[in-house]
Amino acid sequence: MGLSSLYLVNPKRFPDPQADWRAAGALDVVASAKVLDSLEDAIGDCGFVAGTSVRDRHIPWTVKSVEEFALDVVSMSEAAKPLAVLFGRENNGLSNDELAMCNLHVRIPSSDVYGSLNLAMAVQIVVYELFKARGNSEVKAGWDRRHATHSEIVAMYEHLDRVLNAIGFFDPSAPRTAYTRFQRMFGRIELDETEVQILRGMFTHIERAIAVPRD
Amino acid sequence: MGLSSLYLVNPKRFPDPQADWRAAGALDVVASAKVLDSLEDAIGDCGFVAGTSVRDRHIPWTVKSVEEFALDVVSMSEAAKPLAVLFGRENNGLSNDELAMCNLHVRIPSSDVYGSLNLAMAVQIVVYELFKARGNSEVKAGWDRRHATHSEIVAMYEHLDRVLNAIGFFDPSAPRTAYTRFQRMFGRIELDETEVQILRGMFTHIERAIAVPRD
Repeated sequence: MGLSSLYLVNPKRFPDPQADWRAAGALDVVASAKVLDSLEDAIGDCGFVAGTSVRDRHIPWTVKSVEEFALDVVSMSEAAKPLAVLFGRENNGLSNDELAMCNLHVRIPSSDVYGSLNLAMAVQIVVYELFKARGNSEVKAGWDRRHATHSEIVAMYEHLDRVLNAIGFFDPSAPRTAYTRFQRMFGRIELDETEVQILRGMFTHIERAIAVPRD
Repeated sequence: MGLSSLYLVNPKRFPDPQADWRAAGALDVVASAKVLDSLEDAIGDCGFVAGTSVRDRHIPWTVKSVEEFALDVVSMSEAAKPLAVLFGRENNGLSNDELAMCNLHVRIPSSDVYGSLNLAMAVQIVVYELFKARGNSEVKAGWDRRHATHSEIVAMYEHLDRVLNAIGFFDPSAPRTAYTRFQRMFGRIELDETEVQILRGMFTHIERAIAVPRD
């Protein structure tokens, strides 16, 4: 998610083959992680520290959702940086003293039934929101063909109409609601030029198969 | 994240003690997971199937970001439900045939350098966005005291002013920029009533300690 600066305070095991495996390719982030003896060493240089917290504290702190926090970070003055996001232990999170060192507590919205996330999951969501907030929320939706034009679609419908008549699909005494349903169906799939060509090719083959003279 | 219906198609190991441990309390979701032999059995009843995919396919599919998809789900007609989100294998994701069964491909925005996420991470982000989109994006930011009123703040500044004069903090010949900085400092933290009381208590103790007659 585009972050590279990982500080580990008194990790149980590090380096750890499991960490390498779970890095999913981002081995350089793991390899360049800094291991420190105290939290103060880790956040000492930071102009802003956000702590992740699940539960309300005895003395409530300023709390923001991870999404709000990520948007704040984007508009945050350079004077606040470097900025740290502090995650707690797998089993019991951050202590009250550690949370009191934070400017802000960040919370991940989650079900009232199971409020707690694994540490890795919490990290994933925070870095994902930070990545999105930096303007990366869109995915590139590529398409290999241009959309069919309105005229191409109309010509395709006319062709379809001829075929449906030729195969006796339309009941002359009934309203042509089926035709409208075809239009709705094709209309909402935003056909591309190749798809229209494929459909028209199919129509042509139907016409040939039933030996209807083409006009 | 409020989802409870988990289908596993040909899992390598299930039940698995690791799955229980990683469930972070949501054991009922794991316990009620349905294990199936084929993907068709898993998605057969679904009115909409979204597949998660990292890379572009040879024939591009409709692609949306997980955030767009989650918002779509909220406004989606009941006629589309039940809806499935399909995740692939840890190492190589969904096959082309599996992806072709999907109405839509969902993509998680991620760094160009490391586009691939662990399966668990991908699931976490998708269910998180679905949870947020159902109107759960806000975290309740509780506070245990009411904000101090403007009058209380002004009285506190007047008290501070007396104390700063009493301790000789202000240079009579210099402009009182320090005082303005105190105002800016306290102003931007939106003091609550207890914090104002604590500050004024401290001012009073300073006054007593230097034996200044109080007015």
